[in-house]
Amino acid sequence: MLLHHRFFCPHSRFVRLVLAERGLETDMAEAKPWERHDDFLRLNPEGTTPVLEVSDELAIPGAEIIVTYFEESVGHPPERKLLPDGPVQRVEVRRLMHWFGVKFFEEVSGPLVAEKIDKRFMPPTQGGGGPNTSAIRAARANIRYHLRYIGWLAQRNDWLAGPELSYADLVAAAHLSVVDYLGDVPWTDDETAKDWYAKVKSRPSFRALLADRVVGMPASATYADLDF
Amino acid sequence: MLLHHRFFCPHSRFVRLVLAERGLETDMAEAKPWERHDDFLRLNPEGTTPVLEVSDELAIPGAEIIVTYFEESVGHPPERKLLPDGPVQRVEVRRLMHWFGVKFFEEVSGPLVAEKIDKRFMPPTQGGGGPNTSAIRAARANIRYHLRYIGWLAQRNDWLAGPELSYADLVAAAHLSVVDYLGDVPWTDDETAKDWYAKVKSRPSFRALLADRVVGMPASATYADLDF
Repeated sequence: MLLHHRFFCPHSRFVRLVLAERGLETDMAEAKPWERHDDFLRLNPEGTTPVLEVSDELAIPGAEIIVTYFEESVGHPPERKLLPDGPVQRVEVRRLMHWFGVKFFEEVSGPLVAEKIDKRFMPPTQGGGGPNTSAIRAARANIRYHLRYIGWLAQRNDWLAGPELSYADLVAAAHLSVVDYLGDVPWTDDETAKDWYAKVKSRPSFRALLADRVVGMPASATYADLDF
Repeated sequence: MLLHHRFFCPHSRFVRLVLAERGLETDMAEAKPWERHDDFLRLNPEGTTPVLEVSDELAIPGAEIIVTYFEESVGHPPERKLLPDGPVQRVEVRRLMHWFGVKFFEEVSGPLVAEKIDKRFMPPTQGGGGPNTSAIRAARANIRYHLRYIGWLAQRNDWLAGPELSYADLVAAAHLSVVDYLGDVPWTDDETAKDWYAKVKSRPSFRALLADRVVGMPASATYADLDF
């Protein structure tokens, strides 16, 4: 299998966590969606990362569709269920996958990665240039209520969607991880959220992500520190 | 069951089509998400429509999660599979659910409904007011390539995701239907897309949608006409 991804695309990171929790290894190819290469658009007409090429016939676009593919074709990961069995619990995991994959991405991780990282590597003709500081300011304000929400969920349940680790924790941590790299998570705001993140970050599946670096932009002091 | 919806929310319409194809009836309550009532936010903290209340314990937020709930708990609809069995075909149906539910919504149906319909009914303190004409202009430009894409898919496959009707057709038609109400679908641009839409629109599941009206805003000439 070949994963087309970007190292600081939070959706790609979610898939890398899921693959690692499943004990699966893939080849990895870094995509530059803004170049809009025909080869990439054939795999995913939306032109977004991640895309998992499983065979000549099957390229799976998007983190949620990739996750669903493995649930349906392989079943639970070997060590633990990441999607619980009960319908109420499944709805809660999926609600939070949407919360972080769509809402948190739109309000926080998407703009921060676009403005602070992607624009550095895009040519001006493809959208590159200086960061939009008002977009960054808005994202930094938005993260505060998301962090409180994470703290509230973790306090109620141990893990975000219930008593066990689930896809909800992996997607939330994937999106937070890129914001943490940039130093934009106000960890002191919420101890419960911080403790929850420390738990997820300590999992072996997280190790590869913590080794990623943006050229010319060092990680924040907390990024790779398991006792931040 | 009680469906919290808005008549011209395309995600809500997709769910109404799916329920009708399954022969299911629900009570319906019109939501006004912009009022951000606590009761509604308890059902769906994102504050978006649709939400399906199944029981005191289970409120399902979002069209895709509702669709998945029925697939998992009930199985195929009685008359036909709306989600095929093969993994390649399932990925294609889900890819198109994302294409229309997220991308088409962001680029076309979302801004048109917000600017032309919702803003008429929202008080100015909650975002109401005159429409943003540049957002409308952008959406009207965007629909052209989406309509060509629909035509290309329908030409290749009869239905959008393959040889049989699937959720892909229902989601696409739900989103197109609100744009058609507003008279903003350039039908003459693509005969294949128009023929495909006429087929979906003629299904009994579509009938209730074609009776919906916005107070003070008549439907376009094509909206309820099956031979438009």
